[in-house]
Amino acid sequence: MHASGLREQWFHWAPIFKVLAVLWLVLAVFMAIPWLVLLIEEEPDAQAFAFSIAIVLVAVAITLLATLRVTVELKPWQMFLVTTLSWVTISTFASLPLVLGAPQLTFTNAVFESVSAITTTGSTVLVGIEELSDGLKLWRGIMQWLGGIGIIVMGIAILPFLKVGGMRLFHTESSDWSDKVMPRTGGIAKATLSVYVGFTLLAMLAYWLGGMTPLDAIVHAMTSLATGGFANSDASFGAYSAQPHLLWLGSLFMLMGAVPFVLYIRFLRGSRLALWRDQQVQGLLVLLASVSLGLALWRMWQGTAPFEALTHATFNVVSVVTTTGYASEDYTAWGSMAVVAFFYLTFVGGCSGSTSGGMKIFRFQVATILLRNQLRYLIHASGVFPNRYNGQPLTDEITRGVVAFSFFFFLTIAALALALSMMGLDIVTALSGAATALANVGPGLGDTIGPAGNFTTLPDAAKWLLCVGMLLGRLEILTVLVLLTPMFWRR
Amino acid sequence: MHASGLREQWFHWAPIFKVLAVLWLVLAVFMAIPWLVLLIEEEPDAQAFAFSIAIVLVAVAITLLATLRVTVELKPWQMFLVTTLSWVTISTFASLPLVLGAPQLTFTNAVFESVSAITTTGSTVLVGIEELSDGLKLWRGIMQWLGGIGIIVMGIAILPFLKVGGMRLFHTESSDWSDKVMPRTGGIAKATLSVYVGFTLLAMLAYWLGGMTPLDAIVHAMTSLATGGFANSDASFGAYSAQPHLLWLGSLFMLMGAVPFVLYIRFLRGSRLALWRDQQVQGLLVLLASVSLGLALWRMWQGTAPFEALTHATFNVVSVVTTTGYASEDYTAWGSMAVVAFFYLTFVGGCSGSTSGGMKIFRFQVATILLRNQLRYLIHASGVFPNRYNGQPLTDEITRGVVAFSFFFFLTIAALALALSMMGLDIVTALSGAATALANVGPGLGDTIGPAGNFTTLPDAAKWLLCVGMLLGRLEILTVLVLLTPMFWRR
Repeated sequence: MHASGLREQWFHWAPIFKVLAVLWLVLAVFMAIPWLVLLIEEEPDAQAFAFSIAIVLVAVAITLLATLRVTVELKPWQMFLVTTLSWVTISTFASLPLVLGAPQLTFTNAVFESVSAITTTGSTVLVGIEELSDGLKLWRGIMQWLGGIGIIVMGIAILPFLKVGGMRLFHTESSDWSDKVMPRTGGIAKATLSVYVGFTLLAMLAYWLGGMTPLDAIVHAMTSLATGGFANSDASFGAYSAQPHLLWLGSLFMLMGAVPFVLYIRFLRGSRLALWRDQQVQGLLVLLASVSLGLALWRMWQGTAPFEALTHATFNVVSVVTTTGYASEDYTAWGSMAVVAFFYLTFVGGCSGSTSGGMKIFRFQVATILLRNQLRYLIHASGVFPNRYNGQPLTDEITRGVVAFSFFFFLTIAALALALSMMGLDIVTALSGAATALANVGPGLGDTIGPAGNFTTLPDAAKWLLCVGMLLGRLEILTVLVLLTPMFWRR
Repeated sequence: MHASGLREQWFHWAPIFKVLAVLWLVLAVFMAIPWLVLLIEEEPDAQAFAFSIAIVLVAVAITLLATLRVTVELKPWQMFLVTTLSWVTISTFASLPLVLGAPQLTFTNAVFESVSAITTTGSTVLVGIEELSDGLKLWRGIMQWLGGIGIIVMGIAILPFLKVGGMRLFHTESSDWSDKVMPRTGGIAKATLSVYVGFTLLAMLAYWLGGMTPLDAIVHAMTSLATGGFANSDASFGAYSAQPHLLWLGSLFMLMGAVPFVLYIRFLRGSRLALWRDQQVQGLLVLLASVSLGLALWRMWQGTAPFEALTHATFNVVSVVTTTGYASEDYTAWGSMAVVAFFYLTFVGGCSGSTSGGMKIFRFQVATILLRNQLRYLIHASGVFPNRYNGQPLTDEITRGVVAFSFFFFLTIAALALALSMMGLDIVTALSGAATALANVGPGLGDTIGPAGNFTTLPDAAKWLLCVGMLLGRLEILTVLVLLTPMFWRR
């Protein structure tokens, strides 16, 4: 009786682990890149990567052998588990080179750095990033780049089935790509991967031609498109503040990472206006332009030269809204209004279906429609107000999803910040730290974790909490919360 | 043509002004109380009240004469205007004794103080409150007390017709008082007034027997039941921190002010269990008890004696959650966790249909139901989950109202705080100032406007902004926002 219960459990869990093992294998393959670089450069770090790859491969081998005859056909409840476990386990395995390698981080710091990387958050505990080996710089970039493509694919191919995230809104029978052009999401995933790789190569070339070293160009290209935000300097993108053209290139590539990737595919397949007609993209562009301009005017009024003001305002606004998290300078020194503005921008996020995090533009647009209709309803009780978004009807299901996500988002930040404050963090550090983790942005506010600060001085417990926040944010919160309900396990 | 257009306008506006004039008359009558006190005590301030009464009476006389033959029968759009204008004009008239009287406040400070009073917020710009004349102390109490009954009556009799606020949730055919026991809201208003007066007299007696001077007992009774929070000392209720029984009495009377007054009426009419069976009251009590106990334990762990910790934790938690805003000591000195906790508590508010402000308990309870159902829906897509609250079905109309209010609440705080930050207020002062104004609590956080601080040092523009916030909060935001839509004026 007991044995058959165990067997049934195994029957349920085996397909989950089989999928995870395949993802770990991908991670190991990508670990080989910095390993080779370090081998060629004859750096001692190479050993750390070799050990890490070995550990991951052993885990992969054991799991694949144990699940050899298991067919993978996942039910929704198994997909919830695969999704959550994949981000958790990959983050953990990805931290191995940081534990074993040159900077010899503590386990906590290493996991924080790799969770921050894989979730494309970009908060760092490393000081003296310039001194890291090329291989480790590359690994930080690769982790974010892998996280970036992971998010897009998850958003397109997995979350819609779980009824989580916004892509269902863009995933209807009238979409010209969902059923007809490419019959299966596998096709979309492949096309997305091509676009992602193409854009990254483009960004590498542009950064390199713009004056970056090849390694810097490669790493920044990967962390821009992934809206991750890891840079190769403690000064973040501030290392290039004397080269404004690099800041503008950075703004462009971060923006490109924050646009729904399916729109690029539609564009390439002939719908030349798909990008500009998309209400979410329009909203993002209007927001970025108006806030950047507003902050630039504010800075000019304070005495900054116009071009400098516009360059840095745009770069940092784009960086925070796309949830990249580069900083070109300490924008919290721009005055109290800038601090409050960047706090708000931490929540916004880019478009659904992109690499960016946060609440996402479409949720604000849907909320605006709901609020406008509520005011209309108060004036004309009997009026009927059609709810449409992006040319499609706003169903109850979608509005319920938007409302639930928004509430959960604020509740999670509130809970995280309260817990952080119990560890002695002041209110600004606690609130902005919780927000920047959940929105996968990177820098918070205040002297400790602000754009000029570093997460390394936080207590270990706070770092673990922020890891939970980053993973929750990346998984659109509900994917994880579902696992915490008794109902899920009674199923 | 032009003349007839004007006449039509007058025809629309005259009933509005007639109602306002009656409310002003009530204000003038209550102004006579401090005037008489000052006359008896032969204080020079008496003249200020005499002038103020005269000004208000002139306004009343002119308006009533001009609208002599106008019958008052208000359409919804006129009720929106009456509601908003009554709070604005009464606050303005109520400030007259402060402009003309002893502390000789600037117009900005006087209006801030009276808006803070009438909306029962309780933020003060006065320093040296102990030195004020008895008449002025009394007037501060009376303003809050009038504001308190104004809110209850507005919540019961007006907002439900405007489909604003939460009382519609408790206002259905199955209520045992809405149609049968008392056929018209006028009856409920009268019963509510009796309960309010009765409770105030009870509080006066209790405070007086507890050791307060008669004047202090009167003022604190009025500002406790109104959940207003004006005290007769710069130290707020801290003046009684050596008399813990007064703090417990204060906690009790603030709590009594934060419970739906219709429940008292039901209780008095025989439904002995009405109070305890109400889900909103249960939620409020559970919240207050658990947070007070939690903070008390936190303080005991920091070394405070148990009884002292529990007394002050309970008093200040009850004070902030009921949106009263007394402080028995500077709770922001209890450590970072307390700062964050009190920031959150600023939003909560008491029950709908009470004198308290904030988001109100029932909205959190409704939101909890929505979020629980969303998680269930993700697990069992086809499941049907009955939404019931307080024994009644949660209709779409109610959930839409709750969601819209919550979003507008946060948006308004965000907008106010951004504007405040432009005036140079730091992020903690700006955010907590906006929140404490909109929730009608009283104290904010930080050195300037925290429980140990005072609003007087803020720039004038910030004070006006906070006045807007306090009035918006008191009017449940949407009542005012409706007036700002073009649709309202096109009607």
